[in-house]
Amino acid sequence: MKYLGRISSPEDLRKIDIKNLPLLVDEIREFLVEKVSKTGGHLASNLGVVELTIALHYCLNTPHDKLIWDVGHQAYVHKILTGRKDRFDTLRQMDGLCGFPRPDESKYDAFGVGHSSTSVSAAIGMAAARDLAHESYNVVAVIGDGSFAGGMVYEALNNAGKMQTKLLIVLNDNGMSIAKNVGAMSTYLTRLRTAKKYNEAKTSVKSAISRVPLVGEAASSVLSASKKDLKKAIIPGEFFEGLGVMYAGPIDGNNVRELIRAINRVKNLDKPVLLHVVTKKGKGYGPAEKHPDIFHGVGKFDVKTGEVLAKKDYETYGEVFSKALIRLGAVKKNICAITAGMPDSTGIANFGRFYPERTFDVGIAEEHAVTFAAGLAANGYIPVFAVYSTFLQRSYDQLLHDVCLQNLHCIFVIDRAGIVGEDGETHQGIFDTSFLGHMPNMTVMAPCNKRELIDMLNFTVKEVSGPCVIRYPKGAVHDVLRGSSEKIQPGKAQKVYSGKKIAVVSYGTMMQTVLEVYRELIGKGHSPAVYNARFLSPIDEGFIEELKGFEYIFTVEDNIVTGGYGSQLSARLFEKEIFGKKIYNLGFPKKFIEAGSRQQIFKKYGLDSESIADFITEKVK
Amino acid sequence: MKYLGRISSPEDLRKIDIKNLPLLVDEIREFLVEKVSKTGGHLASNLGVVELTIALHYCLNTPHDKLIWDVGHQAYVHKILTGRKDRFDTLRQMDGLCGFPRPDESKYDAFGVGHSSTSVSAAIGMAAARDLAHESYNVVAVIGDGSFAGGMVYEALNNAGKMQTKLLIVLNDNGMSIAKNVGAMSTYLTRLRTAKKYNEAKTSVKSAISRVPLVGEAASSVLSASKKDLKKAIIPGEFFEGLGVMYAGPIDGNNVRELIRAINRVKNLDKPVLLHVVTKKGKGYGPAEKHPDIFHGVGKFDVKTGEVLAKKDYETYGEVFSKALIRLGAVKKNICAITAGMPDSTGIANFGRFYPERTFDVGIAEEHAVTFAAGLAANGYIPVFAVYSTFLQRSYDQLLHDVCLQNLHCIFVIDRAGIVGEDGETHQGIFDTSFLGHMPNMTVMAPCNKRELIDMLNFTVKEVSGPCVIRYPKGAVHDVLRGSSEKIQPGKAQKVYSGKKIAVVSYGTMMQTVLEVYRELIGKGHSPAVYNARFLSPIDEGFIEELKGFEYIFTVEDNIVTGGYGSQLSARLFEKEIFGKKIYNLGFPKKFIEAGSRQQIFKKYGLDSESIADFITEKVK
Repeated sequence: MKYLGRISSPEDLRKIDIKNLPLLVDEIREFLVEKVSKTGGHLASNLGVVELTIALHYCLNTPHDKLIWDVGHQAYVHKILTGRKDRFDTLRQMDGLCGFPRPDESKYDAFGVGHSSTSVSAAIGMAAARDLAHESYNVVAVIGDGSFAGGMVYEALNNAGKMQTKLLIVLNDNGMSIAKNVGAMSTYLTRLRTAKKYNEAKTSVKSAISRVPLVGEAASSVLSASKKDLKKAIIPGEFFEGLGVMYAGPIDGNNVRELIRAINRVKNLDKPVLLHVVTKKGKGYGPAEKHPDIFHGVGKFDVKTGEVLAKKDYETYGEVFSKALIRLGAVKKNICAITAGMPDSTGIANFGRFYPERTFDVGIAEEHAVTFAAGLAANGYIPVFAVYSTFLQRSYDQLLHDVCLQNLHCIFVIDRAGIVGEDGETHQGIFDTSFLGHMPNMTVMAPCNKRELIDMLNFTVKEVSGPCVIRYPKGAVHDVLRGSSEKIQPGKAQKVYSGKKIAVVSYGTMMQTVLEVYRELIGKGHSPAVYNARFLSPIDEGFIEELKGFEYIFTVEDNIVTGGYGSQLSARLFEKEIFGKKIYNLGFPKKFIEAGSRQQIFKKYGLDSESIADFITEKVK
Repeated sequence: MKYLGRISSPEDLRKIDIKNLPLLVDEIREFLVEKVSKTGGHLASNLGVVELTIALHYCLNTPHDKLIWDVGHQAYVHKILTGRKDRFDTLRQMDGLCGFPRPDESKYDAFGVGHSSTSVSAAIGMAAARDLAHESYNVVAVIGDGSFAGGMVYEALNNAGKMQTKLLIVLNDNGMSIAKNVGAMSTYLTRLRTAKKYNEAKTSVKSAISRVPLVGEAASSVLSASKKDLKKAIIPGEFFEGLGVMYAGPIDGNNVRELIRAINRVKNLDKPVLLHVVTKKGKGYGPAEKHPDIFHGVGKFDVKTGEVLAKKDYETYGEVFSKALIRLGAVKKNICAITAGMPDSTGIANFGRFYPERTFDVGIAEEHAVTFAAGLAANGYIPVFAVYSTFLQRSYDQLLHDVCLQNLHCIFVIDRAGIVGEDGETHQGIFDTSFLGHMPNMTVMAPCNKRELIDMLNFTVKEVSGPCVIRYPKGAVHDVLRGSSEKIQPGKAQKVYSGKKIAVVSYGTMMQTVLEVYRELIGKGHSPAVYNARFLSPIDEGFIEELKGFEYIFTVEDNIVTGGYGSQLSARLFEKEIFGKKIYNLGFPKKFIEAGSRQQIFKKYGLDSESIADFITEKVK
């Protein structure tokens, strides 16, 4: 690692002669592949942006210039170049390097990210701050074409186009988001890409900058061109220019010299500029180039063969959902499936193989996805929107205002609820119980095993007429309560064990832990009752009455306790004027939960069976 | 009312000869002005769309064809034409006609609305449902240029451009949203408007539809045109066409014949079409044409003079905030003010008069507003985003993921918290306590009077380093606790009266009611303690300890109880293992709260002083 070895900050990078940068590119690719093969992580997108990241730090005066990565899973190279390469073995582990940029990790991380489409908004805010302080540094947002489906980007461009201050938006276009990209913007970008050969890029950038009227060239094509072709020939970035943002590109994003030339050209313009950079996801590593989807977020793998090690030998809740939905789809012809840019990881792609016309990928646009679902439901279809917990946060208002208020029969299937593990703070699904729990008309459920998920899905489709949520976590289905298959009834909890004095109420997939707790408590001479809550909303009155008989009530959930299941159960008890119970709500404290394995996190926050059993034992002694 | 008198459904409208429609237009304007002068309501926008609404129902086969109004405050004419004119005296009153479209009010209201920028998403959902059912009806979204700043519209266009199914988007461009319009899109629309004279509209629509290559015409202009002019000449709707949505227009939206001609031309095209219609806000009523902002949402007024009756003779919380922020702005040069398209009603416009360079109107784009604020804060400024409670729902994820997670010093000042009254279900600010209460790092406060609002604002600016919220309601400041001005300290409640057995804890502006309750209880021989909560988060430990001494705890808030203040206070008590208290959380039930005066609503839900006093008396007897 001749060049990489010398770099502990971008200043070191800037000392390298431009002609040697391609060698550094190769070293970084090698480093990335080797490290990620051991830790797992986002590989393909990072391989794609090696040249771009080098060029940005080479041309910009970071950290004085502000560099903001949209989403941020593609910021590994940035981390490598900004003094963090020696900690790469700890990537995405507890107390290790975060998988996303974080200002508290490095001064080079100008803004904390994780969710999509925030970078341009943040960048304009920073640019405004710079202007107010009469400073002149650069603010640069790097955003992928997938993130460009998010409405925030448009809101930000609308603002930037009006403000007309210095701002560089680098559109990193690799022609895909996580899966294949969708939407008209994606088609549009493809058109821009194919309209020009990359080897014409130099002139393209130059002319876009100099604003030389293209009359001669344009006029000659006009004479024989249809309106459509004419449009292509004359205004490559008409969409952006329409919004007052200058368009430059497209340029070859895997050519470091070309990038440096382009960035140096646009970086000092006193206006918002969008530089369209075309990169190849997985670039330089054969298996990742061939399967950029597999190597988007990957576990450990064999560098030589590209074979993913530690293959999954279990069934996930997502897979169970996907199969169950396909079966339902055969019977109920009005079921539609929706994904917001994640067809594979949510299981919607499989539904799409059977019922392509009833499957909709709206791109990374969760707000639209929910109101689009509302439109389908208003006209008699049953939309099923499968989404990760953390991303549904984007749709809070659409759920409340467009779906719940009209009491529309939309089904939201939430994957990655609870602890997601290695992605850390930005991705933990620990708020959905709190924000869904107070939405009127919304039925919210959490299954404790595979069978219950299937039953709940059937229930939401066939027996509920308003909005419904089913939430489940990442990872393997739980092998608990297999024998019992009590019918799902609105608001009814399932009594798992009768008992006295102590009731332990488990919400969703904490049941496995709670059953271990039960065994420990039995071993210690207690005889607690165990309930499987099933429903967050509604909570049935009969269940509340039943709880009257206990002195201690422990609720267990994998959500923050504030506003969560336990809190709502308590409120129901108060409503019924059932006071005097000793109620302990176990869950996560009101804080952002760090990265770590699920096991580590549960242990740390006292939500493993041993900690819970100890806690209960201490309280009831 | 020769023509209007005959119309009890759009079918009746369609029987009227096209040449008589201008007479109907006049009758409806007269009707509108007269009715709204008595009930108050949204006038200017409705006066602007009289011709458009008539033309839509004239050309479309409603309700079979689906007509969706964005926001919906401009749907009065639609209500008049669809069998509801006789109920217009009840507009925006309890059990009366809703100020917005509601499917449960009329089959002609295809989709429930209230918040901005949802119509295109809903329309695409409906169009998808139509296609799946192999039907062929029209789906039409009518959306104002102000709503076009919202990112959801772009997410929806991105989806529509890809789906390429029959869909009509009518862009009702009156050159303003509630206040003056802002943003690059607004500039862009102005460019489209001015590029063509309206009298050329007919040809423009025709050629856009027929897709005849414009070679001849274009080529002639090319030869002498700069690139910029060329763009204008050839592709009037380049932004929309870039997204795969056909652009037609602009046409004169106050010419009913022209509208009918245009709508009939585009309505059967099998692709998404945007019809750009230019209307005049306030059209036909002098005072409203002159002051469309005043007559956007107006109270009772004198038809002849246009003078607004029942002038406000009180000071609002919003005004107090505005003045206090201006004073702070003089001292703290790093305070910035942000509004999302509502500079006047939020008080930001006044700040802007003093500090224009530190004032930002980002348009109706609440998601962007919050992350833009985060960007400002990340670079050392203190952004103050003033927003209505119901609209901040849009920013749930941005608050959590962009602001709270990075613990950025952003201040959110929430107006219209609690009951807003006449706007009803879609606009009540009864969820913010629940959704803000569980956000880590967020300090949340509610003042009970003018002085406390000023103190809290000072506190958030000077003594807090992370995100802060201050919430207050619509209407007059409360004239309570004027004498006491105990310093604001993190998490500390203010003891208003000592007492025994009973503690009544008031959150925010319920204090006036609680003080009345106090006097009634004293009159009945009780001696309750009264606390002014001040803080939702954090809640100070000392306060919790103090509550230990009471047998009954009553919390009073103007939010839904689920996840609200009372629920969080209870949770804090449990954390401290303070059990056995009789806790009653008073607030709104978990449902959407209808329109009505604030007084009516509080009475109906048992939150007036008499109901609360009776409730407490019954419980503690």
